[in-house]
Amino acid sequence: MTSRKEVAELAGVSEATVSRVLNNVGPLKEETKLRVLAAATKLGYTPSSIARSFALRRSGNLGVVMPYLPKARLFSAYYFSEILSGIGSKAREEGYDLLMLFRDANEPMDYCGLFRMRKVDACIVLGAKEEPGELAALRLLKEEGHAFCLINQHFEGESFHEVDADHVEGSWQAVTHLLEQGCTRIAFLNGPEAYSNSRDRMRGYTRALTEAGIALDPTLQFEGNFSRRSGVAVAKEMVTRLEQIDAIVAANDRMAIGLQQGLRELGVTAERMPAIVGYDDSDAAELTTPALSSVRVPFYRLGELAAAKVLEMPDGGPEASVQKVRIKLPTELIIRASSQIKKSRRN
Amino acid sequence: MTSRKEVAELAGVSEATVSRVLNNVGPLKEETKLRVLAAATKLGYTPSSIARSFALRRSGNLGVVMPYLPKARLFSAYYFSEILSGIGSKAREEGYDLLMLFRDANEPMDYCGLFRMRKVDACIVLGAKEEPGELAALRLLKEEGHAFCLINQHFEGESFHEVDADHVEGSWQAVTHLLEQGCTRIAFLNGPEAYSNSRDRMRGYTRALTEAGIALDPTLQFEGNFSRRSGVAVAKEMVTRLEQIDAIVAANDRMAIGLQQGLRELGVTAERMPAIVGYDDSDAAELTTPALSSVRVPFYRLGELAAAKVLEMPDGGPEASVQKVRIKLPTELIIRASSQIKKSRRN
Repeated sequence: MTSRKEVAELAGVSEATVSRVLNNVGPLKEETKLRVLAAATKLGYTPSSIARSFALRRSGNLGVVMPYLPKARLFSAYYFSEILSGIGSKAREEGYDLLMLFRDANEPMDYCGLFRMRKVDACIVLGAKEEPGELAALRLLKEEGHAFCLINQHFEGESFHEVDADHVEGSWQAVTHLLEQGCTRIAFLNGPEAYSNSRDRMRGYTRALTEAGIALDPTLQFEGNFSRRSGVAVAKEMVTRLEQIDAIVAANDRMAIGLQQGLRELGVTAERMPAIVGYDDSDAAELTTPALSSVRVPFYRLGELAAAKVLEMPDGGPEASVQKVRIKLPTELIIRASSQIKKSRRN
Repeated sequence: MTSRKEVAELAGVSEATVSRVLNNVGPLKEETKLRVLAAATKLGYTPSSIARSFALRRSGNLGVVMPYLPKARLFSAYYFSEILSGIGSKAREEGYDLLMLFRDANEPMDYCGLFRMRKVDACIVLGAKEEPGELAALRLLKEEGHAFCLINQHFEGESFHEVDADHVEGSWQAVTHLLEQGCTRIAFLNGPEAYSNSRDRMRGYTRALTEAGIALDPTLQFEGNFSRRSGVAVAKEMVTRLEQIDAIVAANDRMAIGLQQGLRELGVTAERMPAIVGYDDSDAAELTTPALSSVRVPFYRLGELAAAKVLEMPDGGPEASVQKVRIKLPTELIIRASSQIKKSRRN
C-alpha cells in the first residue's frame, strides 16, 4: 500500500503538507494542492474514505432546508412529502444522501456554513419567504458561488436558481372554472403574502375577475397559513357573509377542507355550501366528501428537477459560468364534485 | 488568535501532530491525542468548525435508514412520514440534522461505514427485514458499539435496541371486534413475512381465532406488500371466495383501501361488501367512504422515542455499558363504518 511518505516525495512536499491537502486544512497554494492531489491519485493513495471525500470536497450529501414548526408534522404534509420524494429519488439515483436541515421560523440560516463545513455539496431550499434575513442569507450563498436552488419561491429582482410551478395560471384556471358556471361573488382564501406563490395566486385571481369585468371586493379576501385549522378559523368570518358568496377558491387543499368542515359545523347545509376549489390536488382531495376540485401541481417533478439541476452545478465556481435555472411547470385544474354548481341553488 | 504552533508547543508535539489530532487522521496514541486536545481547549484554539467537529468526533447528523424503492413515494406513505416527523422533531430539539440514507432492497448496507466516515453520530433503521445480509450488517454495528436503534422491527434471539408497537395486541383487537359482531369467516391480508410486524399480526390473528374456538383456514390468508395496488390485486383472488368470507382484516390501510376499491370495481355492492378493518389509522382512513375502522399505531411517538434514545447513547463505547432499549407501545382500535355489520347481511 502506498504511504503518505511516497506521496510527499513524488509531489516534492512534506508529509504534513500532504495531510493538510488531503484534509483540506489551512491556507494552501492552489498549485501545491494540485501537485499533491495529482501525486496521490497517481499512486492510488487513499488514506481513508473521509480524507478522500475531503480532498474531493464532497460530502456526498444533498442538503434540503425545510421550515421547522414545533408539533407540526412536516413530513406528513402532501406538499413537502411529494417534493421530498422527488428530491430523494433523484438524489438516490445520483448516489447522494439527503441531509434534512430544519430552519427556525424566525432565524435566518447560515446556509454558507453548511457548505464551508462540508455538510452538503449542494442545497435545495423549501418554503423560503420574502424576508430581509432570508434574502441576505440567500444572497450570500449566491456570492460565494454555492450550488443551490429554490423550489416554489421566487424573489423579484434577484437571480437565484428557481424551480417553480405556474401559480398565476393555476389560480386563474380555478377562478375561471367558477366564473364559467355563473359564479360572480368568488371569495379567496389565500396563504401568507410573504410567499411568492401566494402573491402569484392573487395575480391569477385578480386577472380572472378583471377579464370577467368583475371588480375586486376586498371583503371577499381572506388569509390563512396553509393549515386545516386556519381554514376552520376563516369559516367563522365567512359564515356571516355567506349571502354574498357563491364560490370559494382556497390556496391549498388543507385550508379548503378545513373551510368545508368549519362551515358544516356552523350549520351550513350541503345545499347552501358555496362551490369550493382547493389547490395542490393532494391525496385528501379525492378522499374527502364531496370530492374536492383542485389545482394539480407537479410537486414530485419539481423536486426531481431541482435535485437534478443542483447536483450538476459546480460548487464554488464563478457564478457567471452557471446557466440560470428558471423552471416554471404548468398546473392543471381537476374538477370534482365540490365545485359543481347545484341548479337548485342558483335559481 | 492562537496559532497551531502555540498548541504544539504547549502539548510538546509537532505542528503536524496537532493537525493530525484535530483532523482525526492516522493512528495516534490515546495519550498524545488527549494532550493535544487539552492544549487546544486551554488556548481556545479553533482552527475551523470542521476540524473541531472531527476532534469531537461529531457530525451533528442523526442518520435515518429507509428502504428505497424506485418510483415509490416513500415520504408520502403515512407510516414513514409520521415516524420521520417524530424523529425530526426530537432531532431538531437536540440540535441535530437528519441524514436520510436510502437502502437498496436487495443490497445490505454498510452501516458501520456511516459511522467510520463520520457521516452520522447515531442511526435509526426503518423497515429492516429478517434477512441474512441485513442481520449481519446490524450485528456488526452492535459489535462496534455504535449508537443505533430499530423501529417497528425486532429480531428473535438478537439484542438490538428496538422501539416498536404491540402488533400482536393490535391485530388481536381487530379480529376480536369482528368476532364480537358475529363474524366467523375472517380473511387476513397480511404483509410480507420478513417483517416481524407481519409475523406479530399473524400471531394476534391466530390467537383471537383460537380463543373463539375457530380453526385457522389457510385459504383465508392472503399476502400483499403494503401497497394499495397489492390490495387491488388480492381483491381478484378474494372475489371468487366471497361466499366464504364475512369480514377482512388488512395489515395496513392502503391495502384495505385497495381491497375495497378492487372489490367494488369487480361489482361487489355495498350490501355484499365484507366488514373491513385496516391498520395504521392513517389520514386516509377517516376520509375514505365508508370510513375505515383501523388500528391506531403511535408512529410519531415511536420516532420521537427512538431519536431520544439513540442520541443519548454513547457511540463506540463498550456495548455492555448501555442499557438495552426495548420499548413496545400500545395500539388502539378505532371503529368506523367499514366494520359495522349491516343486519340485512347477517340474517
